[in-house]
Amino acid sequence: MQRNLAKCLVQRCNGVINKKVYLTSVRSLATVKEIFQNKSEFPTRHIGPRKTDVVSMLDLLGFKTLDELTDKVLPQDIKFNRDLDIDLPLNEHELINRIRAVAKKNEIWRSYIGMGYHNCYVPHPILRNIFENPGWTTQYTPYQPEIAQGRLESLLNYQTLVTEMTGLDVANASLLDEGTAAAEAMSLCYRHNKRKKIYLSQNLHPQTLSVVETRLKALDVEVIIGPISEANFTNHEYSGMLLQYPDTYGNVVDFESIAAEAKKNGTLVCVATDLLALTLLRPPAEFGADIAVGTSQRLGVPLGYGGPHAGFFACKQNFVRLIPGRMVGVTRDQDGHDAYRLALQTREQHIRRDKATSNICTAQALLANMSAMFAIYHGPEGLKEIASNIHNGAITLSYGIKRAGHQQLNEHFFDTIHVIPNGLTIDEIKERAERKKINLRYLDDGSVTIALDETVKTEDLDDLLWIFKADTLSEILKDPNALFENITYTQFKRTSSFLTHPIFSKFHSESRMVRYMKQLENKDISLVHSMIPLGSCTMKLNSTTEMIPCSFRHFTEIHPFAPVEQAKGYHQMFDELEKDLCEITGYDKISFQPNSGAQGEYAGLRAIRGYHEANGQHQRNVCLIPVSAHGTNPASAQMAGMRVEPIRVKASDGTIDLAHLKEKAEEFSETLSCLMITYPSTNGIFEAGVAEVCDLIHKHGGQVYLDGANMNAQVGLCRPGDYGSDVSHLNLHKTFCIPHGGGGPGCGPIGVKKHLAPFLPSHPVVDVFQESEVNKSFGTISAAPYGSSMILPISWAYIKLMGGRGLRRATQVAILNANYMSKKLEGHYKTLYRDPSSNLAAHEFILDIREFKKTANIEAVDIAKRLMDYGFHAPTMSWPVAGTLMIEPTESEDKEELDRFCEAMMTIREEIRDIEEGRMDKKINPLKMSPHTQFQVVNTEWNRPYTREQAAFPAPFVRPETKVWPTVARIDDAYGDKHLVCTCPPILPDLYT
Amino acid sequence: MQRNLAKCLVQRCNGVINKKVYLTSVRSLATVKEIFQNKSEFPTRHIGPRKTDVVSMLDLLGFKTLDELTDKVLPQDIKFNRDLDIDLPLNEHELINRIRAVAKKNEIWRSYIGMGYHNCYVPHPILRNIFENPGWTTQYTPYQPEIAQGRLESLLNYQTLVTEMTGLDVANASLLDEGTAAAEAMSLCYRHNKRKKIYLSQNLHPQTLSVVETRLKALDVEVIIGPISEANFTNHEYSGMLLQYPDTYGNVVDFESIAAEAKKNGTLVCVATDLLALTLLRPPAEFGADIAVGTSQRLGVPLGYGGPHAGFFACKQNFVRLIPGRMVGVTRDQDGHDAYRLALQTREQHIRRDKATSNICTAQALLANMSAMFAIYHGPEGLKEIASNIHNGAITLSYGIKRAGHQQLNEHFFDTIHVIPNGLTIDEIKERAERKKINLRYLDDGSVTIALDETVKTEDLDDLLWIFKADTLSEILKDPNALFENITYTQFKRTSSFLTHPIFSKFHSESRMVRYMKQLENKDISLVHSMIPLGSCTMKLNSTTEMIPCSFRHFTEIHPFAPVEQAKGYHQMFDELEKDLCEITGYDKISFQPNSGAQGEYAGLRAIRGYHEANGQHQRNVCLIPVSAHGTNPASAQMAGMRVEPIRVKASDGTIDLAHLKEKAEEFSETLSCLMITYPSTNGIFEAGVAEVCDLIHKHGGQVYLDGANMNAQVGLCRPGDYGSDVSHLNLHKTFCIPHGGGGPGCGPIGVKKHLAPFLPSHPVVDVFQESEVNKSFGTISAAPYGSSMILPISWAYIKLMGGRGLRRATQVAILNANYMSKKLEGHYKTLYRDPSSNLAAHEFILDIREFKKTANIEAVDIAKRLMDYGFHAPTMSWPVAGTLMIEPTESEDKEELDRFCEAMMTIREEIRDIEEGRMDKKINPLKMSPHTQFQVVNTEWNRPYTREQAAFPAPFVRPETKVWPTVARIDDAYGDKHLVCTCPPILPDLYT
Repeated sequence: MQRNLAKCLVQRCNGVINKKVYLTSVRSLATVKEIFQNKSEFPTRHIGPRKTDVVSMLDLLGFKTLDELTDKVLPQDIKFNRDLDIDLPLNEHELINRIRAVAKKNEIWRSYIGMGYHNCYVPHPILRNIFENPGWTTQYTPYQPEIAQGRLESLLNYQTLVTEMTGLDVANASLLDEGTAAAEAMSLCYRHNKRKKIYLSQNLHPQTLSVVETRLKALDVEVIIGPISEANFTNHEYSGMLLQYPDTYGNVVDFESIAAEAKKNGTLVCVATDLLALTLLRPPAEFGADIAVGTSQRLGVPLGYGGPHAGFFACKQNFVRLIPGRMVGVTRDQDGHDAYRLALQTREQHIRRDKATSNICTAQALLANMSAMFAIYHGPEGLKEIASNIHNGAITLSYGIKRAGHQQLNEHFFDTIHVIPNGLTIDEIKERAERKKINLRYLDDGSVTIALDETVKTEDLDDLLWIFKADTLSEILKDPNALFENITYTQFKRTSSFLTHPIFSKFHSESRMVRYMKQLENKDISLVHSMIPLGSCTMKLNSTTEMIPCSFRHFTEIHPFAPVEQAKGYHQMFDELEKDLCEITGYDKISFQPNSGAQGEYAGLRAIRGYHEANGQHQRNVCLIPVSAHGTNPASAQMAGMRVEPIRVKASDGTIDLAHLKEKAEEFSETLSCLMITYPSTNGIFEAGVAEVCDLIHKHGGQVYLDGANMNAQVGLCRPGDYGSDVSHLNLHKTFCIPHGGGGPGCGPIGVKKHLAPFLPSHPVVDVFQESEVNKSFGTISAAPYGSSMILPISWAYIKLMGGRGLRRATQVAILNANYMSKKLEGHYKTLYRDPSSNLAAHEFILDIREFKKTANIEAVDIAKRLMDYGFHAPTMSWPVAGTLMIEPTESEDKEELDRFCEAMMTIREEIRDIEEGRMDKKINPLKMSPHTQFQVVNTEWNRPYTREQAAFPAPFVRPETKVWPTVARIDDAYGDKHLVCTCPPILPDLYT
Repeated sequence: MQRNLAKCLVQRCNGVINKKVYLTSVRSLATVKEIFQNKSEFPTRHIGPRKTDVVSMLDLLGFKTLDELTDKVLPQDIKFNRDLDIDLPLNEHELINRIRAVAKKNEIWRSYIGMGYHNCYVPHPILRNIFENPGWTTQYTPYQPEIAQGRLESLLNYQTLVTEMTGLDVANASLLDEGTAAAEAMSLCYRHNKRKKIYLSQNLHPQTLSVVETRLKALDVEVIIGPISEANFTNHEYSGMLLQYPDTYGNVVDFESIAAEAKKNGTLVCVATDLLALTLLRPPAEFGADIAVGTSQRLGVPLGYGGPHAGFFACKQNFVRLIPGRMVGVTRDQDGHDAYRLALQTREQHIRRDKATSNICTAQALLANMSAMFAIYHGPEGLKEIASNIHNGAITLSYGIKRAGHQQLNEHFFDTIHVIPNGLTIDEIKERAERKKINLRYLDDGSVTIALDETVKTEDLDDLLWIFKADTLSEILKDPNALFENITYTQFKRTSSFLTHPIFSKFHSESRMVRYMKQLENKDISLVHSMIPLGSCTMKLNSTTEMIPCSFRHFTEIHPFAPVEQAKGYHQMFDELEKDLCEITGYDKISFQPNSGAQGEYAGLRAIRGYHEANGQHQRNVCLIPVSAHGTNPASAQMAGMRVEPIRVKASDGTIDLAHLKEKAEEFSETLSCLMITYPSTNGIFEAGVAEVCDLIHKHGGQVYLDGANMNAQVGLCRPGDYGSDVSHLNLHKTFCIPHGGGGPGCGPIGVKKHLAPFLPSHPVVDVFQESEVNKSFGTISAAPYGSSMILPISWAYIKLMGGRGLRRATQVAILNANYMSKKLEGHYKTLYRDPSSNLAAHEFILDIREFKKTANIEAVDIAKRLMDYGFHAPTMSWPVAGTLMIEPTESEDKEELDRFCEAMMTIREEIRDIEEGRMDKKINPLKMSPHTQFQVVNTEWNRPYTREQAAFPAPFVRPETKVWPTVARIDDAYGDKHLVCTCPPILPDLYT
């Protein structure tokens, strides 16, 4: 075409067109071509540095191009040498049209399936101001409490909600779902009294049974499932018993005597329950429960085809130090003011590798916050009214169905009735229901259950009655007896009050509710303020376009156990995402079931174990793990029933001690199950020889589990599946843009090579294996078949928006950003490890702070807290090496933001120097006293050897008009752990009066 | 049914059921009934005080019930004594379903109609973080700049955008639409040189022509419309000329010589233009324009069936003091720091009644902010690329259509081509377009125009070519000549740079963009922080549910001139809203065209004038207006060509001096056009005798215009249409919940009695009169036929959610809240006027501050500024009476918030007393020095006679962890007016580096 143009130029040269115009015209031709292509500018929105910045940043590092840089960073032998085979990128508006069309392939039928998932109304102010608000969704887990008081308060409200409803003493800040909460409960029982059997009621939800069985069997605990009446505790062999109230068929059963019996014999009593039902029903604690678990989904969180939702966990005070997951507690700050923080941090980053009892890391903070706000919005009376309306609907329905001659099996019930049809076959029932686009739960024995929810209207009840050829509602209501089945006329009636704390009664007008949510939001640092460069656990842009589809009703309003034909949109999205993730990782198959990274690890290890067992190699149970690994690695391995053997790393550069690895591989050649490694390593290095390491393990009959935490450094550059890994989990909430939500949802699908595919997680209700595949699954990992389905559109959209080249460039810029910062900080801090040959880091780097302990009595935590005064969230602290800070900027941060962060770090270095050189006091200095609050600096009293300005505005870019203030001073963790308070304190800090 | 229950009780009494259970059962029956009714809890979300609070508040005032209170407040003779005939309220989720169904009746065809309205992509981060974010939408007009720096900065960005694109020196912060901007421009010309003729190009958009004509003719200016070539300026009779560039048919014409000719003869040159086109085209200032106007809709604001969008207005420096509307300027604060504020406030509240030149009050702040952000998001290069893509599409299309044998009339064009079809009749073209669901503009002469926009894709161009039986795009593109029509090869090419200020190049990654928007948001007080109790202009809850439908694509993506058959959803919504508003007001007909309250006033007065003229009473031109009226009243009257006669009010109680009114009515009996009154009065009183006043006016042949500003005190209690008013405008952005948007959109539909209906606004493109009605319209008031259609769902939803009783209760609680506050403040401040008989206010009340000037040198402004330190926005200041504060709390604020505000006022009273009694300095005290910034209180220097704590945390409820800080100290307005800077200053306050 350019030749044509040249010709045409000659022809028209005599006219107005000169050379400049000709060139412009060539350029404009290019532009025209671009319109006609599938052009997307999204990569330039996602990736922070502008093209010119990239050039100058590369220049600082001595490179001409990104390729030159990453060629140097990556070992030659693992390089991926072609473009990713991913669709050309869509622009943001096309993407929304495309995903809308996909979503609409889901058919939204009315669901009365129940089983722990109920439709509900998400109050619009909560939807818009929390779920759709980056101020809430892009918060990190509240490890830095001084800049996280907002969500900590909200999570404390959640804990208070759970304890008040269950009647128990303490609750955690949520778990992944009801199934895993139940598994955690039973594990706790086992840990508590070491008895090797547990008893599960057969009337639990099937997915709860499966998850508990899968998890406990791996610990060699015998799982008995049967009717409650048959449980015999007199042999003192059961560590715990798990009951459901109301149960999966809707029955509300009096457990008081059996609980007493169990207790008498030293068996702990765990109850899976329903927070909404407990507004009407006697709470579990009052009939003897030690532990209660469940899901708070129906309190204001959409169905979303199964998740994410918050699981809850409550127990008696005496088990408080055994509680899994995160728990918010009240403590005080340096000034003696009340403050919140995560209590008893013996888990997570702090999990002690050899003593881990749970790999629980992620909570469901965002969803727990939505449920807490739902309770605050409605208050105790409002919740009770919702429950009463549902119950009254169920009573009427039950009465009508019985009057039509059917058999109703529940003596007592809340929202679910269990029916044996009479005069109508089950196929007729089904056919009539389908005509009304209604899903019921059809049991194998020919009975049906119907679970009502908040959204059920008169017309819905009439349709349900019609299915059973019963009278209409108005007919039924003419009979006053229709209403006498009310459960509050029985011994089950709740008599104790609940949600009496003022927080549940203050914000019932929308004005106040919105103000409360905004007030909490504005206490916390999130990505809407500044970069949050957490090494290994970092956060990149969660773009608005990626988030929008999560609110589409065709994604939110579908039950996880709805017939698969109704979920075609979801399945198309799963398939496309799976295809793309396989292409990115080099794996052959993905399971979306694990709903956190740690769950993914565990599932991957179980798949490996299943594979060995299927090969008759039951003895293979040794898991090699470098000592630098994330604490969840050994925890997951132990939970999967493996024996962990640590592999040393070299002190010099932090890389795996290959000699030691070889030695161990040989030593355990017969019993080797697998190696767990992180790549690039947790030290931020692309270690050479990873391919040989994989070979070595395979030679000894082992499998390679590659922790996908650092996939962000690999996408488009190398593929685990190519260089020898057999399985990885993928932290979608990191590399693939799902936001952190203030501590969850996470999302940890796993990818495997073909030989492991038959061993992926299965599900007792939904067949997640397609016909073509063999199901040799080890069991079930999450309550929902596809885990946190509702947020998968985010990762799907990210890939579709970036395209193959965009993804690759993102990886390259992530590496560039890390190396740029490391270089800029070079004269100021020591970067602990770099690749010995290139002197480069991968996508993150570790600053060594240890020397300052000696020279100035300054530790990593002091720098972390001081950074808050500069408006920044701290990097990862003291992990993987104590006394260090690990920084991972991601590709989404631009040069200006990186420079700002570096300036803060350099200024802090000078503040340290002032201490080192005696110009500043060793105890009272801006670092030790940080972070600084308004209370401190706007105070007549000021007796410090530095100024108020230095305290609060320590760099030119920290300005009064945009300052983000920590709302409490440095937290006193020890005090809080000594005086544990994990529900709203009697008098809340009086902010709202 | 209760009897049945009793019987059943007897029968079953021997069993378990006792009396308590019986009663519960009766109660639960009631509950069941409620499920089966159409129950809505929304009124309890909208109305702040809880039921128990209402009781205690009434108690303070000495009343038992709300009815008792309002019976006392309202004159007996105007009471509305039945329930409003409005549908039973829907709950919030039903409402969304209902409005979604209504919206879907709009058919979204592709529109190439153009005429000032173009489809565009709203960047999702802007959509979600501004348009859908209450932090932005619920801000008030930035009259209190110290707590409004965020939106002031954004509006300054808008002004900079407009000046840079047009090449002119100054721009305002937006006007209502292109039509009114053009009318304002031509009025300015007339004011400037007093010549009684203007010349309008016949190639202006028809709606621009109509609006200008309507407005200017009322000022007795002769409007000539013709071809530009025929304009003859040598007689010096034209004050101004208005051209369009590109014009309504797409032509880009060289105006240089005609502009020079006009100028030479003292005629001002005004150009209606297109900001996007100006990225490629030589800007108007460079060919001699004195003024440029237009709409910035296509820069990131949805079509929305015509509005709201921001109109823009730019001019040369020498007209700066004549600019209509609001203008942001740079000044400095008390500490000498740069600060923004509304410059030259000679308009609005400050309009001098007798010298008003414009009644412009509302701007389109929210939409202007969206457009400013659109420009920041894309930057100069991005905007140019968008424009180039559109232009290249247009070139190709033009080439293809010509090649197919049609005649293309534009020699030069940007995005719109004008075609005379050849070989295809216009009906064939239309039929083919309809098959593709495409709207074109069909002109009466059988020609067609096609206007392309940002969203046009390859397939769209192919479809357009298909309509004209032209080759496909790929065929056409084989011919390199296809691209040589590029306008940048001509003399029209823009050579000057634009948007060179760094603000337009810093925020191109989404992370940065979102942070910038959040940073600005967090500088400003809005309803998400605290009450904003502005007397007469207050803000109630703008609920999320009401806002959600505004983003529905079936509302956003429809062109205002699309065939009415495609807008059935909109028309159903209009009809329902009209019906409800008529029922509420007692009027018979509503016009939605006026897009602000002042526009409504003007339209209403023009309707009255039209009515008199139709009755042959051309002489009726006297408009009686009480001196206490809002300044827009006389301004509108003057603009409508009326003679204003002021009516005195009584100093004692602020009521109209009836004797004086009678006198005037008699004096002008022959020439009386109308009375303009506000009811309840601007003094916050339901004056007795309003019905007689109306009678009196009618008796003298006049009409009654009732300013609807205070409709919030009447809904459900009395109806203007019942007690004698003939026409009112309704401030939907106040009484009917449309948010204030930081200074617009407003929305001012008018309601009229039947006899005035034929005189309502008409429209030149869309027939807004239904066939059944006679059109005797005075002309056109807004560019779009139904004004700000896209936000009308808010008011529609509010009414549907509240129901008749809910609306009435809202009014009652609004009155309760005002009287409660007035009572609580009684011992501390003097309430200026109360009803003499009841000693009660209506829905607002005035605190008299004047005495403090003498006793403590304290003025209203000092209290207003000091309130910021308490976290509050000031009430209305010095209006309607100088030296006062007018407070209107609305029904949405709860008791706790009212108490908090009262506590602030009482504490301030004590601070004043400290001055009065000599305990505090008269010059340096917390009031005079307010508001206090972080810069001041976090400063080593502190030499004031009060503490830092008293400065910043003056009451227990003002706490560091939730403090909302003014970001600048008290503004120096005089300095700013002396040193006028109304575009981004060369170096912005360096917040982002």
